[in-house]
Amino acid sequence: MAVGKSVNRVDAMAKVTGRAKYTEDFYHPDMLVAKYFRSSIAHGRVTAINTKKAENLDGVHAVFTYKDVPENKFPTAGHPLALTEDHKDAADRLLLTRDVRFMGDEIAIVVAQNELVANEALKLIEVSYDEYQPLILPEDILEENARQIHEGSSNIVGEHTYTFGNDVDQAFEKADHVVEGSFRTAMVQHCHIENHISHAYMDDLDKIVIVSSTQIPHIARRIVGEVLNIPLSRIRVIKPFVGGGFGNKQDVILEPMVAFLTLKLNGRAVQINLSREECIIGTRTRHPFYIDVKTGVMNDGTIVARHMDAISITGAYASHGHSVAAAGGSKQSSLYPRAATSFHARTLYANTPVAGAMRAYGSPQIIYALECATEDAARKIGMDSVEFRLKNVARQGDINLLSGKEILSCGLADCLIKGRDFIGWGEKKKEYEKFKTGPVRKGLGLACLSYASGTYPVCVEIAGARIALNQDGTVHVMVGATEIGQGSDTVVAQMVAQTLSFPYENVLVVQAQDTDVTPFDTGAYASRQAYVVSNAVFRAATDLREKILDHAAVMTDIDVAGLDIVDGNIVDTRKSAQVMDMKTLAIDSFYHKERGCQLTAEASFKATTNAPVFGCTFVDITVNIPLCKIKINRMISVHDSGVIINPVQSGGQIHGGAFMGIGAALSEELLIDPKTGYIYNNNLLDYKFPTFTDVPPIHHDFVETFEPTSAYGNKALGEPPVISPPPAIRNAVLDATGLCINSLPLSPHTLFTAFKDHGLIDEKGGDNV
Amino acid sequence: MAVGKSVNRVDAMAKVTGRAKYTEDFYHPDMLVAKYFRSSIAHGRVTAINTKKAENLDGVHAVFTYKDVPENKFPTAGHPLALTEDHKDAADRLLLTRDVRFMGDEIAIVVAQNELVANEALKLIEVSYDEYQPLILPEDILEENARQIHEGSSNIVGEHTYTFGNDVDQAFEKADHVVEGSFRTAMVQHCHIENHISHAYMDDLDKIVIVSSTQIPHIARRIVGEVLNIPLSRIRVIKPFVGGGFGNKQDVILEPMVAFLTLKLNGRAVQINLSREECIIGTRTRHPFYIDVKTGVMNDGTIVARHMDAISITGAYASHGHSVAAAGGSKQSSLYPRAATSFHARTLYANTPVAGAMRAYGSPQIIYALECATEDAARKIGMDSVEFRLKNVARQGDINLLSGKEILSCGLADCLIKGRDFIGWGEKKKEYEKFKTGPVRKGLGLACLSYASGTYPVCVEIAGARIALNQDGTVHVMVGATEIGQGSDTVVAQMVAQTLSFPYENVLVVQAQDTDVTPFDTGAYASRQAYVVSNAVFRAATDLREKILDHAAVMTDIDVAGLDIVDGNIVDTRKSAQVMDMKTLAIDSFYHKERGCQLTAEASFKATTNAPVFGCTFVDITVNIPLCKIKINRMISVHDSGVIINPVQSGGQIHGGAFMGIGAALSEELLIDPKTGYIYNNNLLDYKFPTFTDVPPIHHDFVETFEPTSAYGNKALGEPPVISPPPAIRNAVLDATGLCINSLPLSPHTLFTAFKDHGLIDEKGGDNV
Repeated sequence: MAVGKSVNRVDAMAKVTGRAKYTEDFYHPDMLVAKYFRSSIAHGRVTAINTKKAENLDGVHAVFTYKDVPENKFPTAGHPLALTEDHKDAADRLLLTRDVRFMGDEIAIVVAQNELVANEALKLIEVSYDEYQPLILPEDILEENARQIHEGSSNIVGEHTYTFGNDVDQAFEKADHVVEGSFRTAMVQHCHIENHISHAYMDDLDKIVIVSSTQIPHIARRIVGEVLNIPLSRIRVIKPFVGGGFGNKQDVILEPMVAFLTLKLNGRAVQINLSREECIIGTRTRHPFYIDVKTGVMNDGTIVARHMDAISITGAYASHGHSVAAAGGSKQSSLYPRAATSFHARTLYANTPVAGAMRAYGSPQIIYALECATEDAARKIGMDSVEFRLKNVARQGDINLLSGKEILSCGLADCLIKGRDFIGWGEKKKEYEKFKTGPVRKGLGLACLSYASGTYPVCVEIAGARIALNQDGTVHVMVGATEIGQGSDTVVAQMVAQTLSFPYENVLVVQAQDTDVTPFDTGAYASRQAYVVSNAVFRAATDLREKILDHAAVMTDIDVAGLDIVDGNIVDTRKSAQVMDMKTLAIDSFYHKERGCQLTAEASFKATTNAPVFGCTFVDITVNIPLCKIKINRMISVHDSGVIINPVQSGGQIHGGAFMGIGAALSEELLIDPKTGYIYNNNLLDYKFPTFTDVPPIHHDFVETFEPTSAYGNKALGEPPVISPPPAIRNAVLDATGLCINSLPLSPHTLFTAFKDHGLIDEKGGDNV
Repeated sequence: MAVGKSVNRVDAMAKVTGRAKYTEDFYHPDMLVAKYFRSSIAHGRVTAINTKKAENLDGVHAVFTYKDVPENKFPTAGHPLALTEDHKDAADRLLLTRDVRFMGDEIAIVVAQNELVANEALKLIEVSYDEYQPLILPEDILEENARQIHEGSSNIVGEHTYTFGNDVDQAFEKADHVVEGSFRTAMVQHCHIENHISHAYMDDLDKIVIVSSTQIPHIARRIVGEVLNIPLSRIRVIKPFVGGGFGNKQDVILEPMVAFLTLKLNGRAVQINLSREECIIGTRTRHPFYIDVKTGVMNDGTIVARHMDAISITGAYASHGHSVAAAGGSKQSSLYPRAATSFHARTLYANTPVAGAMRAYGSPQIIYALECATEDAARKIGMDSVEFRLKNVARQGDINLLSGKEILSCGLADCLIKGRDFIGWGEKKKEYEKFKTGPVRKGLGLACLSYASGTYPVCVEIAGARIALNQDGTVHVMVGATEIGQGSDTVVAQMVAQTLSFPYENVLVVQAQDTDVTPFDTGAYASRQAYVVSNAVFRAATDLREKILDHAAVMTDIDVAGLDIVDGNIVDTRKSAQVMDMKTLAIDSFYHKERGCQLTAEASFKATTNAPVFGCTFVDITVNIPLCKIKINRMISVHDSGVIINPVQSGGQIHGGAFMGIGAALSEELLIDPKTGYIYNNNLLDYKFPTFTDVPPIHHDFVETFEPTSAYGNKALGEPPVISPPPAIRNAVLDATGLCINSLPLSPHTLFTAFKDHGLIDEKGGDNV
């Protein structure tokens, strides 16, 4: 049984030996490099641009400006094509812009022999602007006479409301208590190891080849076609190994530009390789949210009503736009399905770096507010935080009232119990009672999460797999599911091994996507891959298994009903005897002159289900009041992601997500000057990303359920672990200090202000406690 | 209808613009180059080798000798694995050898930074030999006490006899006349534009990637695995565009060595790029043949008996060995199926460059002798050469007595009539009667040919195709059939367009093979591809067509029986109305959230038939006796290759084959010193390959038959055109001069000797006529 085992990653050796080829490793001897000329203001319009001097610099091949690019606006969000208007992404982007909407906006691009020359040339470009007041804060953006950041469009990119359950107003009226709170999450960045990089060339006058570090090769192909008005079959996107994406490569950022450049330069290879600084300001960020939450709760601990009002800031361009707020908001219905709930959200343009998809896509913001508010409600009625959740969270058999679907698998209550036991909730609570005063305080916190296993019914969910038997009795598997470091190729290999009854080592995954040949799949996002691909893989493997057994029957004259595959060998089940090994069968199928053929199977599958996943995080912290510093003593995240295909790899996802959650909770924030739109910390020195020394040992555990809509019982796991650590930490700070500090990150700066405001320290930071 | 149209090649633009990527265009920044150290003697054994100085040269990374390579001998012939012993290729080769068997044999190899350093290093290698007398001529090789060129093996690599039809001896006894002749063909070389080139690297510690200019990527993969004892799935062979092969790349020549080197050098990329000189002596050549033919003929023109005895020289190693003589010999039964025939052939080792597969694989030699002998028989009884053939050659319905199969399509008689008409046979014959004396003589000649459409039943015949519908309503086609310049990708696209009823432009062929993902096919040889792949393509395209129509039925609620595809659009046949275009259907199949999926189809097919093809060449020549020179005034080749998929491309094959045939007929020969084994003309200056100025305008025509065992009625065409020009020219020389000059090439040197021997010129070359 390959599923459930912690097998080594299929790409482990390639990666640890440095042999794995990333986009930058694909070399063309005559490749040119391109560098963006970026705006030095946050809001305005170019009145004049002079590129002559840059063009005349030795080694410069071309300079293009907003005057040279196609006029059709396009969306960049990595979504499958929507057949209905209601889910189409906002098309608000040009390849280069005259209208400047954030500091770093792309006005022109230089193509040169090498990066040195390109950087020199950038300095020679002269530009003048009409400057406008940058719109950074919601109140300024929403002001009645505020300038439209995109002329002709409202500054509100999207807005929606929903309600589910009973009448919400009535429910609030009947509630014993109503608890309110306002929450704010910060603009953070993905900080994947490999920056955005793409190159393109033409190996025919009729075809553009793009090699790119992307999560969505098939979507990139489609959008490039739309931007350049080229049939999609004339574009080929190759995705080599990818050094992380976390959603930032679920946007089509560089591909249209490198395609445009090679087309302009007669097919010559052109690469864009963003620096870290460019990557931080010029790709995507996580939307900062402003959220007001109202919770109606009964004395017995039942949450009866909830209202949430959220503002999401998408920055200069829509990118994933309002769908991030919508997706985040929808998770309320799977986490607390029994409370009457209303939700209102607006997404705003702003003169800030563009927000897009980032790990868990709106849920970290929404669930941060939700789980802080839930904690506040529990405290309001004096109920134990864990008991309060146990009473209110989703259970198997609940109906998700937004989707109308029954929750078929849910282990959240067991997750809470496991987490409570691990952290020693009862004893610690008691022990920490004496640490509620003085300079060093201690507390416990927890938060729950729910997430989905894909995007259905918002987007189409499709995956494909082709499996071919090799002459040596192994198989090669091609999938559209996109490995970006998360380990999807490995779980695909495990699934194939499981269904074929092959040794895991005998399943080889083709470790790159090439849109000309790879089965179609929309890519790596929404924690969809292992879930959606499971049914494609299962169908293809089942089909191949049948073909193998049919050929075995032809070879042996044994009735196929009496044949089986066991550990990669053909077995006569009636005699419990091995009939032949897989190599013998494969050789015959390929090389026998009259019978057999190459044995392959392919399946393309659309998922019309979407399994919710659950989890929780418990933390034990120490708060040093005078130092304004939080120390995490212990932390555990417990997840229900259905059947765990690969425990060690799944653990890796939880640990990685927890790191990222701790960063968002304690230190990460892209600091933007609210007056000028200047970004203070566009680099990894000033952007306080946690390192290994900044995070505590993290523990994880699973509550394995079996999700019947997945072929192997598995559900999403990639994104969820990032969601619950920040509210758990905020709730622990509340437990330790009695203060509701609702703005992330809980950095020394934030804590200082809060402690000062509440008199724990004095004006100068002196210790009052 | 795409089949039968002279559409542009799918790779035309890529090639004429120089964008098509060949093996040398795949670059690795740190790639090393390897150069063979070759023997300077033709026969002997290395007694000592010192590579120290070479190893110490700056820039040299390694030197390997025969001491360092695996000890298991392997075959290099590009044949599919044979499951029975009788068809296994001779395993007589090591990666490097201590026993020297031809001048240029590979004793050691230097790996260096670049070619300059490698060449310097080669000069520093010191070697001493035990020298043996080279065995070059058949009489020396077959001498009772001749040294075994491969110790422990006979110098006779293979030998076989066959008979078909009536008792041959009796038939000779009853014949009115018996005509005998002895014929000799030369060692010639393929002279493809792109020399042999391969490189290999490891992108994992567990996997070797080989990029190679090969006709047989899947076979190369298997043989490399056998040589290095690595499972075949751990080897990946990529075939980019190929600059011709003509059979010389149907041998696994460089791939095992580059794979061995990268394995030894920790996965670093290593390239071998043979020079033209190395390619001429160190790859493969066409087997020279010595053939005796006896023909029994009746006064009415019926050939009643034939016996042929052939010696084929394979040179230092077996490579394709005796199968070339066997394959060539077998064509008698499809060309003259009604004569009682016996055949005996032996293939000999010799201390000469290695012979292997070359365009038409033994048939140019056998049919040269056969068609010269047939001409001699016609003249013996005074019958017109054309009438004599018309009486004796194969007709539809004849039984090929060797295979036992009926000839289902045969237009040879019509080919002869077309050729006769074009050349103006009757009038010219009359006109040229007055040119049979004097210094300038004129004559007409013709020769027929037959060939096969694959290797069945000798080898397995298998082809695969996968077709995927793209979102823009085009399709991508993956085939294992290997494009090497012959145009196979184009005919595949035409076949797919035909069966799908798509515009040809909407069928895109993936123009590279990658053994990890490409459907299995044994490769480009035996003129098999268009024939064998036809049924795979037809099945896959038919399957995809059905899936498309099924989806159209789902979308439209029209019964599928009333739907059809016409010119790439969905049509309601009952209303004769277009329902939607293919893009609309494709978009729905990909992106509708509940119905459809990616529409793909794949088929792997084994052919258990093998259609014979036919053709003939007519020439009109002038022989200048004092100058010993032949001028071709007109030439026409007429072919029955079933349905012609692409007339212009097929014409290209005929013209190319005729060029090659004219070269073999008039000028080409690799000259080997019979005493030392020295090769006099290992370069394209001294090896007299015809250029455009050397060949006359060539005409071609077709007699289209419909071959029912092919999905599109087509049969082989790649190799056959090379077969008939040499005997046609020899027969024309006979017509012009009355001399049977039976040794190829009919170069001035050969003609001088013949003319002198027959008194047409005197000892000093003076004109006697």
